[in-house]
Amino acid sequence: MTTSLYDITVPVLLRGLGNLEAVLGKGEAFASEQGIAPSALLEARLAPDMYPLVGQIQRASDTAKFAAVRLGGVENVPFEDAETDFADLFARIAKTRAFLEAAPRAAFEGKEDAEVVLKTPSSERRFRGVDYALGFLLPNFFFHVTTAYDILRHKGVPIGKLDYLGRD
Amino acid sequence: MTTSLYDITVPVLLRGLGNLEAVLGKGEAFASEQGIAPSALLEARLAPDMYPLVGQIQRASDTAKFAAVRLGGVENVPFEDAETDFADLFARIAKTRAFLEAAPRAAFEGKEDAEVVLKTPSSERRFRGVDYALGFLLPNFFFHVTTAYDILRHKGVPIGKLDYLGRD
Repeated sequence: MTTSLYDITVPVLLRGLGNLEAVLGKGEAFASEQGIAPSALLEARLAPDMYPLVGQIQRASDTAKFAAVRLGGVENVPFEDAETDFADLFARIAKTRAFLEAAPRAAFEGKEDAEVVLKTPSSERRFRGVDYALGFLLPNFFFHVTTAYDILRHKGVPIGKLDYLGRD
Repeated sequence: MTTSLYDITVPVLLRGLGNLEAVLGKGEAFASEQGIAPSALLEARLAPDMYPLVGQIQRASDTAKFAAVRLGGVENVPFEDAETDFADLFARIAKTRAFLEAAPRAAFEGKEDAEVVLKTPSSERRFRGVDYALGFLLPNFFFHVTTAYDILRHKGVPIGKLDYLGRD
């Protein structure tokens, strides 16, 4: 018995996006209850050269979306990074989930050994599909979801590990 | 083509522990270069009721170790949580890696559907083996590795995403 590349990625990302949405909802409620400007959370960051909360969610979204593009062969649809409030971020998460949900399971079949190339202006990295999934995609996705959580915790939002992990 | 439960967990955790060790090494070097007391990093935390850096590393260690216990049937060896300096933390990471490396690949075979029970004083959660691996173990492990990174970044340590992800 073994596990498909689809099951290693898509359901894990969908679960993480759902948990991120719940954590973000608690942040929005906290700002409202405490009379804090939403921007005080949305623009908060842990270091001057790290992404703020908005950017962490944009990067979690893109990381998840690219699972479907790079492993499932789905054509990329660029997301604009124009979010400025909580409603925009919930919409971003929702469209990311919809993008992933539309990726056909069959398209991931046999892609464990397919080459994935990540290009940046300064470098190019090549992975086997499954190594990309387990050594880059999931660690990077959980990095941004965790850092979003850490920013909210740092700002006093009452959330706990089970909000991050999910309760069922 | 599909992926074994061993390959979904053990090599991923070993890679993450190696990256955590590298990030921690940059923290130690930074404290030394800047004349900062090591405890100013080791006891730093992002919220009053979150674990400090030491605790994040202890929890990453235990989370990784329990992959071998809960999925590979290896007998647990309790680790004491007595670390107080960087050398102790490097030793903790090293013994966690050795514990995982000793877990036999064959012991994970067919455990995708085996029940994993997580007991806490207040609750009990039951998972299929593969759901535990992908829905609890890996998210929780990357949570603690990321939060260790975030604490060091927050304290000014010059690390970047490639330190967290690894460069090869």
